[in-house]
Amino acid sequence: MGQERTYKRRPIGVFDSGVGGLTVVRALRAVLPGEDIIYLGDTARVPYGSKSPRTVERYSLTCQQFLLDRGVKLVLIACNTVSATALPALSAASPVPVIGAVEPGASRALAATHNDHIGVIGTLATVRSTAYVKAIGAHNPRGRVTAVACPLLVPLAEEGWTDDDIARLIARRYLASLFDADPQIDTLVLGCTHYPLLREVITHVAQELAHHPVSVVDSATAMAEAAGEALGSGANRRSEAGRLDCFATDTSRLDELAPRFLGEPLTGFELVDL
Amino acid sequence: MGQERTYKRRPIGVFDSGVGGLTVVRALRAVLPGEDIIYLGDTARVPYGSKSPRTVERYSLTCQQFLLDRGVKLVLIACNTVSATALPALSAASPVPVIGAVEPGASRALAATHNDHIGVIGTLATVRSTAYVKAIGAHNPRGRVTAVACPLLVPLAEEGWTDDDIARLIARRYLASLFDADPQIDTLVLGCTHYPLLREVITHVAQELAHHPVSVVDSATAMAEAAGEALGSGANRRSEAGRLDCFATDTSRLDELAPRFLGEPLTGFELVDL
Repeated sequence: MGQERTYKRRPIGVFDSGVGGLTVVRALRAVLPGEDIIYLGDTARVPYGSKSPRTVERYSLTCQQFLLDRGVKLVLIACNTVSATALPALSAASPVPVIGAVEPGASRALAATHNDHIGVIGTLATVRSTAYVKAIGAHNPRGRVTAVACPLLVPLAEEGWTDDDIARLIARRYLASLFDADPQIDTLVLGCTHYPLLREVITHVAQELAHHPVSVVDSATAMAEAAGEALGSGANRRSEAGRLDCFATDTSRLDELAPRFLGEPLTGFELVDL
Repeated sequence: MGQERTYKRRPIGVFDSGVGGLTVVRALRAVLPGEDIIYLGDTARVPYGSKSPRTVERYSLTCQQFLLDRGVKLVLIACNTVSATALPALSAASPVPVIGAVEPGASRALAATHNDHIGVIGTLATVRSTAYVKAIGAHNPRGRVTAVACPLLVPLAEEGWTDDDIARLIARRYLASLFDADPQIDTLVLGCTHYPLLREVITHVAQELAHHPVSVVDSATAMAEAAGEALGSGANRRSEAGRLDCFATDTSRLDELAPRFLGEPLTGFELVDL
């Protein structure tokens, strides 16, 4: 009983190559508000997408160890590149459960689709990895996945230009190529931690282009829900709000960017050298 | 005489963290068509802008040595981040002249301006480095430099969306903040190797916003002209076209991107491990 209570009180660890993973923290705080969270952004070495798999694995093992050293009861990999590349190595190295960014979104997409036609948008690295195609195919071999890389969406989200004519035109250009490739898509996965900031414009444009209802699955929310399921009775469901401690390997521009992704003010990042 | 001819025949070396430096090659081939050129893109480790100065220096010394080992008579650093960070170290380590990306554009801007009001657009890393402010200030302490970071322009150029409504709206948003900060700007420096692809739309929007003529200085062309000046009588002014040999540390996506930046078809990149 005492041990169980101690377990419940341990924090959840979240790491990302950068600041985008704060959308996962935001979703976690909505789904599991009582949990303490430790966030680590490897902002000095962002982006991971252009690095070799060996380097991505090495960096992400260091990130995960930083969280494990702080006693986390669960690790969330809020980075599609790491999830697609290093999840087996990270799971093998962790005594606590590890949740990647791809599997939860893929599962939710399969639960949402009525016709097995699923669209995925993400970074070039994520689309190239075919991680979503594999994850969806593993559950449902009939699932038809069409993926489009959207390189402009990350800087768009970082600039905070999320609800204007530029955002609409860019979303329309990318989603048009998605629905051209498969007009029957009824479920769209936002396969990048930055995209929840653009959820509204993406949803709106997708409905316009599809001429039928489109479910939008946000991988950040899917990860938070998967965390709740993984913890089960080990989730801290106390009424007071959990604390959030943020760490980063480089703090430049964080004051501007972090609140945008977290959706609330931030007390600050502690600089760490990994 | 024999030695001079040998010197003339040696190639010019150009390196960049990625593929954008091919705009400098393109300008070189226009200004000095007879020169042989060796290009190296460190595409495996791009972008340098988010790396520490020590790492940037270390990587760029390796790139330069690769070119020196191939007997180049001149080195062009087609990367603003490297130029702003590592030019002294690169010059000290090179037996041949080294031309950075900042100084030539700064000189041309000072020659073009009539009122000493100069605007600079570049990446976040370039603007943060204040390299153009320092270079222009060193020549003319009365020069007033206003710099704006334009993070969306690099992915825009890479997507090839260079002449449409999206390009115009994004250029207008960034340049509006530049001319709001200093409405008297009469000279605009394109301080990033990617931007020559957007030269037309940027020039058009700048004229619209300024309500007076604006000279646009493209740092790639400025570098090519500086190369001609540095070589003097050592330039190879033969009538036949020089050869171009391209090397890269990662070749993914190069077939798509390289011709866009070079402005001509490409026989291919040789993969090298630095």
